[in-house]
Amino acid sequence: MAYEHTSTRQIEFSETDMAGLVHFSNYFRYMEIAERDFFEAVGIDLIHSKPGDVVGWPRVRVDCKFAEPLRFGDHIDIHLAVKNVKDRSIEYQFRIFRRNGLEDRSQVAKGSMTTVLTRLSENGGLQSIDLPPQVLEKIEPAPAKVLARPEDV
Amino acid sequence: MAYEHTSTRQIEFSETDMAGLVHFSNYFRYMEIAERDFFEAVGIDLIHSKPGDVVGWPRVRVDCKFAEPLRFGDHIDIHLAVKNVKDRSIEYQFRIFRRNGLEDRSQVAKGSMTTVLTRLSENGGLQSIDLPPQVLEKIEPAPAKVLARPEDV
Amino acid sequence: MAYEHTSTRQIEFSETDMAGLVHFSNYFRYMEIAERDFFEAVGIDLIHSKPGDVVGWPRVRVDCKFAEPLRFGDHIDIHLAVKNVKDRSIEYQFRIFRRNGLEDRSQVAKGSMTTVLTRLSENGGLQSIDLPPQVLEKIEPAPAKVLARPEDV
Amino acid sequence: MAYEHTSTRQIEFSETDMAGLVHFSNYFRYMEIAERDFFEAVGIDLIHSKPGDVVGWPRVRVDCKFAEPLRFGDHIDIHLAVKNVKDRSIEYQFRIFRRNGLEDRSQVAKGSMTTVLTRLSENGGLQSIDLPPQVLEKIEPAPAKVLARPEDV
Repeated sequence: MAYEHTSTRQIEFSETDMAGLVHFSNYFRYMEIAERDFFEAVGIDLIHSKPGDVVGWPRVRVDCKFAEPLRFGDHIDIHLAVKNVKDRSIEYQFRIFRRNGLEDRSQVAKGSMTTVLTRLSENGGLQSIDLPPQVLEKIEPAPAKVLARPEDV
Repeated sequence: MAYEHTSTRQIEFSETDMAGLVHFSNYFRYMEIAERDFFEAVGIDLIHSKPGDVVGWPRVRVDCKFAEPLRFGDHIDIHLAVKNVKDRSIEYQFRIFRRNGLEDRSQVAKGSMTTVLTRLSENGGLQSIDLPPQVLEKIEPAPAKVLARPEDV
Repeated sequence: MAYEHTSTRQIEFSETDMAGLVHFSNYFRYMEIAERDFFEAVGIDLIHSKPGDVVGWPRVRVDCKFAEPLRFGDHIDIHLAVKNVKDRSIEYQFRIFRRNGLEDRSQVAKGSMTTVLTRLSENGGLQSIDLPPQVLEKIEPAPAKVLARPEDV
Repeated sequence: MAYEHTSTRQIEFSETDMAGLVHFSNYFRYMEIAERDFFEAVGIDLIHSKPGDVVGWPRVRVDCKFAEPLRFGDHIDIHLAVKNVKDRSIEYQFRIFRRNGLEDRSQVAKGSMTTVLTRLSENGGLQSIDLPPQVLEKIEPAPAKVLARPEDV
């Protein structure tokens, strides 16, 4: 059973804005990258996670607090922790760190995201469905000590 | 004194993802468009809102709840309401509506954003500064009845 | 028969980069907006332009020359002209202008794009298909004088 | 003296569009990532590549031909080769490959980009400037055999 994952990434030029900082909307793309990597690491197929159906994971709620800006070239860690697993949805917590050196990093943002497993029907409709066993048997909520670390924003 | 603004927009192809829906990160760009339009409408210069300084408005917190998806070609209203004005920051509430016809629309998302006025110094540092009179004399918090309408998500 | 269209747009904050200019990748999104508007104006359904099939218009070639930068808040005209209509593809020419006033504008970029009508099959494959009558009877190549105006970059 | 570089990357969900394919505008962001990595690898500071000045590299021309689509999760190689070095500009060639396995890859796109070294003055003006020795002594045009490989699109 897995409950956390860390992805790494370097900030791209196209992710900055005219203030010289990463545009805040990109933090949500970083979160999504960690989610994709987490699913890959635990062996869940994001698109075919329910056999026989093409599914999606629409987000029902997201938030983010920004403590320090990110800049072009920064190396970041994106830490995902499973906060909650319900019948049809998963809630994640994300923390983003800027690496200042090999052994040093600063937390620059903290967010969360709730996502619902949804069948994409041919007529374009969305219908939430139960998380299948292949998802439930692989992930679990993170222990409290993982969710609340001293370096929290 | 102004406290609300509605911007309109049509969903672009490049804003969709492979689920056939608007990628959720774009909702924050829609919010930002309404903020730009609000500032233009009330006569505040977003970049030079403090005379003699180049300033930015880094976000310190954002959130969004998604009730229904948006699709390519949809026409949306983005409603901004000022929730709070503090010494150095403004909190906005946003509601996004999909237009179903001339007189009919559905609320599809609701979010908020807190943004801080910040001086961008030459060495790249950020320093929050007081909102100048030219901002304070033009905007005010919206009445409770504007913030809480019956069609809320 | 239609062969040209002009869309208008205002540059958004999230479209700038840390050089203070619009990131060049966004020019291709502007072109795509003009294409969407052109199809709407002439009455072609971009997604269901072949009855009974869900289709796409993958691009096979694009280019752009940039003469002057665009900045946050600039108002632009995006001019599309049909350059060529073949059995399965359309070639467009695009010119982007920055509005300097009511009667004054400068051409800031010029590009072209070739796009192919393609059936999206259920297994994910792509297959180019003939342009249907409902497309062919509505659009035609622009006259040479429209394609080559004196203000060309 | 360096003349080529290969960056790797995995396609993100937010880079796809409703056709289920990577939106073509993102290919230009992939090219830019390879450029950033190339500059890092050879030791050129993209932003301070001229001592004492903050500079940018606006693009004056880009193009891309697309041979096959890319999809969510694909692993790609982005190959950059220096095509030309002039007094104030560099022209790159890019080829993008989809990895099909450890020893197998298919070329899916080929493009080029010309970029000009530019001083960003405080009043927002742009002025092209000569490539400084620290750039000229580190990069050179790639041999013809590198630019034209049999797997060309």
